[in-house]
Amino acid sequence: MFITFEGIDGSGKSTQARMLAERLPDAVLTREPGGSPGAEEIRQLLLTGDPDRWSAETEILLFTAARRDHLEKTIRPALEAGRTVICDRFADSTRIYQGATRGDLRATVDRLHDLMIGREPDLTFVIDMDPSVALERGLARGSGEDRFEDFGLGFQETLRHGFLQLAHDHADRCVVIEGNRAPEAVAAEVAAQLAAREVA
Amino acid sequence: MFITFEGIDGSGKSTQARMLAERLPDAVLTREPGGSPGAEEIRQLLLTGDPDRWSAETEILLFTAARRDHLEKTIRPALEAGRTVICDRFADSTRIYQGATRGDLRATVDRLHDLMIGREPDLTFVIDMDPSVALERGLARGSGEDRFEDFGLGFQETLRHGFLQLAHDHADRCVVIEGNRAPEAVAAEVAAQLAAREVA
Ligand SMILES: Nc1ncnc2c1ncn2[C@@H]1O[C@H](COP(=O)(O)OP(=O)(O)O)[C@@H](O)[C@H]1O
Ligand SMILES: Nc1ncnc2c1ncn2[C@@H]1O[C@H](COP(=O)(O)OP(=O)(O)O)[C@@H](O)[C@H]1O
Ligand SMILES: [Mg+2]
Ligand SMILES: [Mg+2]
Repeated sequence: MFITFEGIDGSGKSTQARMLAERLPDAVLTREPGGSPGAEEIRQLLLTGDPDRWSAETEILLFTAARRDHLEKTIRPALEAGRTVICDRFADSTRIYQGATRGDLRATVDRLHDLMIGREPDLTFVIDMDPSVALERGLARGSGEDRFEDFGLGFQETLRHGFLQLAHDHADRCVVIEGNRAPEAVAAEVAAQLAAREVA
Repeated sequence: MFITFEGIDGSGKSTQARMLAERLPDAVLTREPGGSPGAEEIRQLLLTGDPDRWSAETEILLFTAARRDHLEKTIRPALEAGRTVICDRFADSTRIYQGATRGDLRATVDRLHDLMIGREPDLTFVIDMDPSVALERGLARGSGEDRFEDFGLGFQETLRHGFLQLAHDHADRCVVIEGNRAPEAVAAEVAAQLAAREVA
């Protein structure tokens, strides 16, 4: 089973992905962008240097190249070996972040995905919460990575709405989880939803 | 005007591109893969390390990302400034090399091109010649780059046939030039064909 976690920055994706992996002894925990040696190298190309050096179009091509490598080298072999794959962000993040910054590119993102990736997760947990609460968590974390400062709360509101719309459009594989609770409470609901799916 | 040179390894593309650029004072001479700082970095990713480290699919995504950057940063600005762009290899090389190694990917290469690149050259010189003669040139050149040793003469025969077929399918923009002549004789025909097009 291929499980992904999606949601705005600071919503708890990495925390929940790790907690779920701890519950499932056979699971492979991975993340995007990156997740395979080649994809990590492409990630470096994307994250280093002048932030404007790639156009949005070149950026989605590089993200798709990294995802293709990640899929071939990490995700598919693990699934074929019968293991559960838990991935911290996947194609939905490209759809939503790209859609939020360059709405006209959403169709291109989808066609590129259909052409070169194809695979969707079996189950996607969309962790939902108020961006201003997530922002406080990010400040507490103190990582240089968070994007609140770069783009502001309004941008995170746009992302939040995008993720909720996506969960609605792909209700077959997406489950929205309320993220503004203790980590253990969120993890318990994730485990319950997964168990419900496995029985079905 | 956007002019490209295509053909098998050692056919004289780089030589003829340079000779034509010398004739046209305002021309921008560029090449693929590479041709812009970002594309050159992607080229490094493609050319360094284990040759098997990228699948054919990831490779065409990386080539397309490099081409998109090259188009945006080098080719389009020069064309918009009214200059002639002369490019040593372009999308046709991806079509033919990819088609020769993984024929089933040709349709994907074309769809990816239509989606993310779109632009075709106004004029493409396909330099045609017997691979065994081109091989002798390559040996004389002594560059570590030539692919005859990696893939053999049979592979170059397949490429040659692919380029001739492509010139036939895109007769509106392609001109086949006999390459097995003195460089000046080839250059004179290139210049004559270009003049004929400019008058038309
Ligand atoms: N349920 C939670 N309640 C409070 N803080 C949390 C919770 N989940 C995660 N955090 C903390 O919030 C910050 C962001 O969590 P993280 O899992 O890294 O989010 P994301 O990967 O979605 O950006 C981290 O410092 C993390 O320890
Ligand atoms: N018309 C020609 N006759 C003989 N040698 C040539 C001719 N054109 C190029 N060469 C030589 O052949 C080698 C390959 O030419 P080059 O222009 O690098 O080909 P390509 O770029 O198609 O691989 C070089 O050493 C070059 O100097
Ligand atoms: Mg995270
Ligand atoms: Mg050359």
